[in-house]
Amino acid sequence: MSVYDRLKELGIVIPAAPLPVAAYVPAVVSGEYAFTAGQIPFVDGKVKYVGKVGAELAEEDGYASAQVCALNCLAVLQTALGDLDRVERILKVTVFVNSTPDFTKSPAVANGASEFFVNVFGENGKHARSAVGVSSLPLDAATEVEVIAKVHPA
Amino acid sequence: MSVYDRLKELGIVIPAAPLPVAAYVPAVVSGEYAFTAGQIPFVDGKVKYVGKVGAELAEEDGYASAQVCALNCLAVLQTALGDLDRVERILKVTVFVNSTPDFTKSPAVANGASEFFVNVFGENGKHARSAVGVSSLPLDAATEVEVIAKVHPA
Amino acid sequence: MSVYDRLKELGIVIPAAPLPVAAYVPAVVSGEYAFTAGQIPFVDGKVKYVGKVGAELAEEDGYASAQVCALNCLAVLQTALGDLDRVERILKVTVFVNSTPDFTKSPAVANGASEFFVNVFGENGKHARSAVGVSSLPLDAATEVEVIAKVHPA
Repeated sequence: MSVYDRLKELGIVIPAAPLPVAAYVPAVVSGEYAFTAGQIPFVDGKVKYVGKVGAELAEEDGYASAQVCALNCLAVLQTALGDLDRVERILKVTVFVNSTPDFTKSPAVANGASEFFVNVFGENGKHARSAVGVSSLPLDAATEVEVIAKVHPA
Repeated sequence: MSVYDRLKELGIVIPAAPLPVAAYVPAVVSGEYAFTAGQIPFVDGKVKYVGKVGAELAEEDGYASAQVCALNCLAVLQTALGDLDRVERILKVTVFVNSTPDFTKSPAVANGASEFFVNVFGENGKHARSAVGVSSLPLDAATEVEVIAKVHPA
Repeated sequence: MSVYDRLKELGIVIPAAPLPVAAYVPAVVSGEYAFTAGQIPFVDGKVKYVGKVGAELAEEDGYASAQVCALNCLAVLQTALGDLDRVERILKVTVFVNSTPDFTKSPAVANGASEFFVNVFGENGKHARSAVGVSSLPLDAATEVEVIAKVHPA
């Protein structure tokens, strides 16, 4: 099944790829591997989830934020690859959570991204993952998600 | 020499691979590369080192914690690869240290992982490394360690 | 054009590769990929930018610090590769910023590294990037930068 059929089934529309906040590119493809830049929860050009999980934001907000970041990872991969069906496997996902020092549930937040990838790609969406609570993120975003993917040749 | 002989020599027993805390897999093998999920210091299903280095925990605790994380990286690599002798080289290690803002000795903590890999794999255990102090980690673990390894074909 | 001609044009002198602070190596080359250890802003064996961006240090200091870290990434790549013209592409850059919890401009700081790579390598210097604010860094360095590069065979 094409990933596009699956996205349709899930009612997911891939947004336009967010432009980098600065001097870099959204994703780079190198032979069999693609690397995304860290994605923050941009929706229509605005950061949707702002603030620290454990303070202004609840765990659920963090989960929703990580999901939007994961969607934006797909958006930049689509732009870089031309076709999301070229994604062979999501290999590694890193989820940085903008959190208070006493917040210990980054895995629950990071599941917003992990479950999204598994929903979209099934077995090929199962990845190794690190979840880390950090002291601050760009534009005070709640989460930042980056991906390394294995890709089929063009 | 097989890495298993070396582990025996060192008196190291590879534990059962810790199950992921959430919706991801412990390690992914892709062609010549293997990526582990971030490992925390689980021992027999419990996090052995809990809290922040520089506050509740001393540098030495952090070192011991990073060593356990590194051992768990081997456990998940063994499960993913079937055979640790397939590890050709430990390429990159990232050590996240749950630390206070004024703790500046993350390299000493991260050595718990680095020295472990060099002990086990010798020259092939020598890796590029980043050590970073972060504001919080899953389950309030003292450290989290992830690995990228080059691997021989099955 | 050789990258050395470009470095000359820019008036950039590659320093001696900083020695690791601890038990690891400055960079590892594996087939088509090279991984650097996280580099801090060492200049002549001393950390030049010390402290937190958003407190003791301004955004501009962070930018300058990230630039020095990027230069040190080139230094360790040169040592590992023998020749910087073997760098085919800078694929992924991660910039950790030692920052206060309310500092939200890590992308501006990280540009110190990103713009440096683009200046030196042109199109081949354009990379995917993550910028993250962390609670502490080795030796209280202001920034730490790590690189994954695609490399030509020796």
